[in-house]
Amino acid sequence: MFNIEITNHQVIKNAFESISHIVDEITMTADSEALHMRCLSRDHTQFILLDLEKTVFDSYQCDTPEKISIDSTELMKVLKTLKSTDILLFNVDDNNLIVTMKGDAERKFNIRLISLEYEEAQPPIIDLPCNISIGSDLMKDYINDMDIYSDKLELLVDEDYLIIRTDGQMGDAEIKYLHGENIREAVSSGFGIDKLKDIFRASKFSQDCTLRIGEDMPLFVTFTLPTGDGKLEFLLAPRLETEE
Amino acid sequence: MFNIEITNHQVIKNAFESISHIVDEITMTADSEALHMRCLSRDHTQFILLDLEKTVFDSYQCDTPEKISIDSTELMKVLKTLKSTDILLFNVDDNNLIVTMKGDAERKFNIRLISLEYEEAQPPIIDLPCNISIGSDLMKDYINDMDIYSDKLELLVDEDYLIIRTDGQMGDAEIKYLHGENIREAVSSGFGIDKLKDIFRASKFSQDCTLRIGEDMPLFVTFTLPTGDGKLEFLLAPRLETEE
Amino acid sequence: MFNIEITNHQVIKNAFESISHIVDEITMTADSEALHMRCLSRDHTQFILLDLEKTVFDSYQCDTPEKISIDSTELMKVLKTLKSTDILLFNVDDNNLIVTMKGDAERKFNIRLISLEYEEAQPPIIDLPCNISIGSDLMKDYINDMDIYSDKLELLVDEDYLIIRTDGQMGDAEIKYLHGENIREAVSSGFGIDKLKDIFRASKFSQDCTLRIGEDMPLFVTFTLPTGDGKLEFLLAPRLETEE
Repeated sequence: MFNIEITNHQVIKNAFESISHIVDEITMTADSEALHMRCLSRDHTQFILLDLEKTVFDSYQCDTPEKISIDSTELMKVLKTLKSTDILLFNVDDNNLIVTMKGDAERKFNIRLISLEYEEAQPPIIDLPCNISIGSDLMKDYINDMDIYSDKLELLVDEDYLIIRTDGQMGDAEIKYLHGENIREAVSSGFGIDKLKDIFRASKFSQDCTLRIGEDMPLFVTFTLPTGDGKLEFLLAPRLETEE
Repeated sequence: MFNIEITNHQVIKNAFESISHIVDEITMTADSEALHMRCLSRDHTQFILLDLEKTVFDSYQCDTPEKISIDSTELMKVLKTLKSTDILLFNVDDNNLIVTMKGDAERKFNIRLISLEYEEAQPPIIDLPCNISIGSDLMKDYINDMDIYSDKLELLVDEDYLIIRTDGQMGDAEIKYLHGENIREAVSSGFGIDKLKDIFRASKFSQDCTLRIGEDMPLFVTFTLPTGDGKLEFLLAPRLETEE
Repeated sequence: MFNIEITNHQVIKNAFESISHIVDEITMTADSEALHMRCLSRDHTQFILLDLEKTVFDSYQCDTPEKISIDSTELMKVLKTLKSTDILLFNVDDNNLIVTMKGDAERKFNIRLISLEYEEAQPPIIDLPCNISIGSDLMKDYINDMDIYSDKLELLVDEDYLIIRTDGQMGDAEIKYLHGENIREAVSSGFGIDKLKDIFRASKFSQDCTLRIGEDMPLFVTFTLPTGDGKLEFLLAPRLETEE
């Protein structure tokens, strides 16, 4: 018995806006307490973690653990038809994830379950020296402005600033954001701009996000619901100079 | 002498938004009482009827009956330049439909008349068991949401619901709309989604529309002006299983 | 020492919205009093003049005359990232025009200087009989509406009207705008619609513009800031019948 209902479905839509750009097939697992998703992008450069505790939902029922594997593009196509006043419901039968939207009419979409060899991965635990909190839409804008000169950017953190830098033949650019954090050591890592753009498609998931940055280390971007019961986290591998 | 003037020209624009997608060349006829159009799509699957009585217009003059044949895409290109505060005028000379828009400036467009073998067709009179009234924009949204899985949808009516259904390899979908009508018998017919989308480009012609549905029979979609003096009607042939 | 700062940067953005469509490489010159630009389009049919006096800027410093040659597309890419609340700064180093935007963060873009053989051209002085003032956005709309039938339009001026006319196989169109000016003689000249469209991408530079028109003569379009200290002027060569 898996049966969940949510009015504030922007959370789901915003998360999959990004997820569906990064991975093709996903497995969600549900237990009595929460809906989870862990997945690795096909090229193994990105890891995504989604945790939505039952309190995120208006109603949440899951008697026995469920494993729901679907095509993420198919799910996104369906979620795109959501109207803001709809109530969104998820349940499953033997062959389908059943997505129901209740508005002026009841709209029911059956998305075929797929069979996926699935070992739930866990994100690596990495100790990163810099922890910066920044407005999600602000960071999204900064990244989107940075694809003028190159397909790669550098994130640098020093005592005072988060610095975003790109370098190209026609010019270079640098954004300096006063972070107001207590930073142990200055670091820098390079990342693909398109991959960062995909992550920040989820910027509406929460108003602020946390960036964790190290020296030539993966980047963690974490969006947490203000209520604390929902988390969407992305890990992005650094793009090293030698790759170019 | 053919001379008409209209301030509320959205009616004209909305009708041709749809018509220009369905038929290439149209013939309008005008008499002392009304402006008419009857036309059949090139593939003979759609019939369109437009009737605008003289009271729809701010001023309407037509001493002798006129037959105006033009390219519908050309007319739509011109209508697209309408500003909401313009006054729209139609008249004819020997070679042109003259479309005048009076705003900050006077803008006059001459659209070449074409010669068209034209026998005014009449829509077939078909008795259909189900008659359903529904918001035009609502129905438009339902149809537009339905092209995820297939290029065809099924319209079903039972005692309580209008059901819109599509079926595809990746999933299926169903919209259930409580119709509140008195229905004699349950029916269902299948239609091409793109053709329905074209019809509902005219959704702003009137807030509500009427659907008439039978068992494997053509669909009638009728938009009527609230004032009762204007009607835009579409007839769409069913798409039978064997066509696939 | 070249250092300028402007809050009302829409003026700059609007001007280059148009300029970057017309010329690939530009040279701006700055002296102690103003920022100038004179340039000729590659096909020599258009001349653009931009004059921004130091009072246009919130702060303006230029001790020794500067010549700044850059790729106009690169500049426009950078200006597109401007947010309305940003403060915009220009300065130069040996290799770059440095564009800084101060908002939530400080964003700095270095646009490579290019070496350009540059002899500052001056617009030809031509005495044109007709001088017409018209709303910039209005004129923009009129031109944009005119590409239905042809890629060329005719500007005609008589005692009462500015007339914009196009002629094509499928139809023709005419816009009559009551100009309220005192006109010495009736004239007409033809121009390419796409070139006029490019000019009017700058329509937001000032609410009104002045058109100067002659008989088969170039067109001057002049946008002047209400404060009188900024001017953007376009000269467009006529398109003669024989060119077709």
